[in-house]
Amino acid sequence: MTGGGRLPAPDTPPLRIAMSNDPDHLSGAVATAARLLAATRAQLQRTGGALALACTAGGRLSAELLDDQQVGCFEIAWAAADLMAAGLALQATQQDADEDELERRLALLFATDAIAATWQRLQMLQIDLGLDLAGLQALMADADWPALARAAAGSLALAETGRAVADGDGEVGRVELHESARMAQDTFRRFAAEVVAPQAEAIHRHDLTVPESLLQPLREMGVFGLAIPERYDGLAPNDRDDTVTMIAVTEALSEASLAAAGSLITRPEILARALLAGGTEAQKQHWLPRLAAGEPLCAIAITEPDYGSDVAALALRGTRVPGGWRLDGAKTWCTFAGKAGVLMVVTRTDPDRSQGHKGLSLLLVEKPSHEGHAFEAVQPASGGQPGGGRLTGKAIPTIGYRGMHSFDLSFDHWFVPDSHVIGGEAGLGKGFYFTMTGMVGGRMQTTARATGVMRAALRAALRYAADRQVFGAPLASYPLTLAKLARMAARLAACRHLAYAVAESLDAGGDRMQASLAKLMACRSAEIVTREALQIHGGMGYAEETNVSRYFVDARVLSIFEGAEETLALKVVARELLERWSAPARS
Amino acid sequence: MTGGGRLPAPDTPPLRIAMSNDPDHLSGAVATAARLLAATRAQLQRTGGALALACTAGGRLSAELLDDQQVGCFEIAWAAADLMAAGLALQATQQDADEDELERRLALLFATDAIAATWQRLQMLQIDLGLDLAGLQALMADADWPALARAAAGSLALAETGRAVADGDGEVGRVELHESARMAQDTFRRFAAEVVAPQAEAIHRHDLTVPESLLQPLREMGVFGLAIPERYDGLAPNDRDDTVTMIAVTEALSEASLAAAGSLITRPEILARALLAGGTEAQKQHWLPRLAAGEPLCAIAITEPDYGSDVAALALRGTRVPGGWRLDGAKTWCTFAGKAGVLMVVTRTDPDRSQGHKGLSLLLVEKPSHEGHAFEAVQPASGGQPGGGRLTGKAIPTIGYRGMHSFDLSFDHWFVPDSHVIGGEAGLGKGFYFTMTGMVGGRMQTTARATGVMRAALRAALRYAADRQVFGAPLASYPLTLAKLARMAARLAACRHLAYAVAESLDAGGDRMQASLAKLMACRSAEIVTREALQIHGGMGYAEETNVSRYFVDARVLSIFEGAEETLALKVVARELLERWSAPARS
Repeated sequence: MTGGGRLPAPDTPPLRIAMSNDPDHLSGAVATAARLLAATRAQLQRTGGALALACTAGGRLSAELLDDQQVGCFEIAWAAADLMAAGLALQATQQDADEDELERRLALLFATDAIAATWQRLQMLQIDLGLDLAGLQALMADADWPALARAAAGSLALAETGRAVADGDGEVGRVELHESARMAQDTFRRFAAEVVAPQAEAIHRHDLTVPESLLQPLREMGVFGLAIPERYDGLAPNDRDDTVTMIAVTEALSEASLAAAGSLITRPEILARALLAGGTEAQKQHWLPRLAAGEPLCAIAITEPDYGSDVAALALRGTRVPGGWRLDGAKTWCTFAGKAGVLMVVTRTDPDRSQGHKGLSLLLVEKPSHEGHAFEAVQPASGGQPGGGRLTGKAIPTIGYRGMHSFDLSFDHWFVPDSHVIGGEAGLGKGFYFTMTGMVGGRMQTTARATGVMRAALRAALRYAADRQVFGAPLASYPLTLAKLARMAARLAACRHLAYAVAESLDAGGDRMQASLAKLMACRSAEIVTREALQIHGGMGYAEETNVSRYFVDARVLSIFEGAEETLALKVVARELLERWSAPARS
Repeated sequence: MTGGGRLPAPDTPPLRIAMSNDPDHLSGAVATAARLLAATRAQLQRTGGALALACTAGGRLSAELLDDQQVGCFEIAWAAADLMAAGLALQATQQDADEDELERRLALLFATDAIAATWQRLQMLQIDLGLDLAGLQALMADADWPALARAAAGSLALAETGRAVADGDGEVGRVELHESARMAQDTFRRFAAEVVAPQAEAIHRHDLTVPESLLQPLREMGVFGLAIPERYDGLAPNDRDDTVTMIAVTEALSEASLAAAGSLITRPEILARALLAGGTEAQKQHWLPRLAAGEPLCAIAITEPDYGSDVAALALRGTRVPGGWRLDGAKTWCTFAGKAGVLMVVTRTDPDRSQGHKGLSLLLVEKPSHEGHAFEAVQPASGGQPGGGRLTGKAIPTIGYRGMHSFDLSFDHWFVPDSHVIGGEAGLGKGFYFTMTGMVGGRMQTTARATGVMRAALRAALRYAADRQVFGAPLASYPLTLAKLARMAARLAACRHLAYAVAESLDAGGDRMQASLAKLMACRSAEIVTREALQIHGGMGYAEETNVSRYFVDARVLSIFEGAEETLALKVVARELLERWSAPARS
């Protein structure tokens, strides 16, 4: 339980600096922050360019050299994520016609912290790469830095910002949503608060399966069709993606429960995108309207017991048999496999293992929907099907993210008809690519799942800090509490700006790598924010009856699934950045 | 799951720098680190002195001004903790006759990270306090820093250090123990591995009460008498404390289970010290041998539902009645209250609330021992006792630290005879002081609980990283994994040096504040190390069947109990340091 002292009463002047009444002061700070951010970005690019050179052999990036430089690549990815989030947060506040003071303070705080953290990362990297430190050191000695640091992150600024956060309801990181996204956000926030929230604790603590009392209204609201075009009975426009609406809904649901609501959309999203990318028209006609209706629910089986993110090594075997394929092997971490009526199974259909990911195809496995933690399905002989195939599933108990359950699956002579190979004969060997089209959406979803959990944690901390009396005053009146709340809010706000800006950019055909960058940033941030929210609750935060304890254990899964932090940072973000930054050097 | 590439095979020379074969290089780095650490400490003291001045009114530190400066105080406490741990780690390696290379590398890595982190903290503080930055900036531009940073924390150094960690068994942070502590460590590590570890998962997952199959052998081994002098049938020397042995045992047991073994000693430690400090000789004669034998087990009831660390506000009421006291009110977070046969209850015996902590006394409440999650005891009328008193307890479900259970307690007209007031009439009003004498021990125990959990997490991560194949090679062969293992090991090693050095110092009558500093440092470190250990396990780390998921949720309680992080940092560590640093300025 946090101790400490109250802020001076509002009428005691001593250390207070006039900021609230001095908008010019904040504008000046925003301009300084933007300038230092740009200069820091230039240093990042210079450092990244040098790292790229160290990873270049024969005129191109070498996978082996990139691997030697994993530590530097990891740092580059984090620095890029911090700076991008900071830049977007600042930009949003510069464009904000209302000149909302709290939003400005939060953007300044996040940017200042990001700049300082990046300087430290870059200094270490530049030392490691043997670069001349003079440019970075000059930047670190910039004459305007102390004034910015004090205005944004000094003790009085933290108290002022924290008080503004504490006086609000956690509605930070305001983004301008287009009309339909805004309506969806309102609708699903209401549904989350009224229908999901009251059931969330019980589902988590008793490890229940998401009940039909949640699923049925969500079906009716069209949640499972958010990534499916209207022409296939979904809610997405026919002519473009609407990632913005999708993440607005995900975030709203995740605020009430990551596992019982916020994660329901991820699976139909991935399968729908795979079908849209690779399915035959007949398959689209058959499956997409059903998936959009949430009948059947679906699950995605990729990971195998011996292989995590190493897709090229997947081994679940598909053997050609008359009329279809016979599946044998195991999958793991297949979330919602029990309740699902159809599984998208990444299958090795080419027995030549050297084909790597080019030997993978997507097979649709229909199965009965099961409640509970274990199931077994046996195929009857019927029509042309041989029968006798067996599929068993067993839920893996986890410390959080309970409700959908993640299953170990075992396929034993399970028959899949040719009609259920995505793309038919033409789809064979393309399973990896079809899966990848859905992964970008999955990462954006996960970004929004993280912001939803953060938002819940911040709001819980705000309520607790306002109510809890410590040493005769509310916890929220102490400077250290206010500083914590300010930094939590700044992080949430920056992640929201990042999430929605990247989603908009993706909908306009923009840079897909940024989905990984946003996912990285938001998921780690959710760990940090839920940790602090729990700490603010003291002992009560550790109790299962307090929601924040669930936010904390739920948040811990985010940096692991939908692309582990390390995989995304190294194999997607750093690799892509180094590729770009090295291009001029090579040309 | 971590992706990435293998290190170059041992025979590929390209980027490798010769460190292993260049001991002089490491010696030079140690000397540089020691010099920069001393200079950084001087900057900390200068900054802390300025902060102390800002908190001084009328020639002394003002509680109100200290509260205004909570953010700065918090930073000062962390900086002091980092630097002290780094200094002790470096010192140990300088004194190490074997010149163990791994220990040196770990000390260098931790010290380098601590120096860089402290520079950043101090810069912000100096800006905030309006100090001249020139001295700190000159230090940050020290000509030897790049070479040190590269040698200690450059990518190749991290890989080399990580490989040495990976090749070992997690036996890092070696400390020289005196003979009986070393024997105790060996004995209890063996017991923990053979007896505790096999039961730990089930106790956690099914939220069982620590079973007699663990308690009985621990009784026989004398665990409950570790803080009790031999003359009262305990294991501690009669003439001095032996904190070193106590924490060696705690650490060993905590490695197998924080909740089912490592935390059993804390309660008898606190009660025994309170009795030794304030009990009558008759009370010592009666209780200490019984507590040493673990018959009865005991629990400590301090915290109340509305008050966490705010001892002066405690409200559980003791009313004088013929022959004793009548207790009415509630306590919460009373760990092991079910199983315990005696509770030490901090009671307000002076109805004048303005007395604050001077109105508190310690009453011993005898009750039947109960298994399970709830109990109710009703006092029979007997002898002079009125009877009818009722005590109910209900375990609070928590995300970790399961096994002892922490209870909500409700006292209703519960009678305690005069004989059960610690110190008798003379002890009335001294409950706070008697409790405090045990708190230092409790904090050192908690430090050791944290190092035990970290050690378990590091060792689990080492085993997993060695076994798990990713992209065709063991996870432990990838530079990013090695860097993580290196930093986890460096942190554990530094915390062990800190823990044992402070324990030794306490046993020699040294600085009690350092117990809080060590507790701060080790508990936050346990959060960091268990987080990384879980991440290295990927999805498996999130599964309840994997021990590391338990280490992660268990570690989360450490920064909350036995003095919350914020309370210790502000009210003990920073306050004490500022007091010292401000003394010369005022004299």
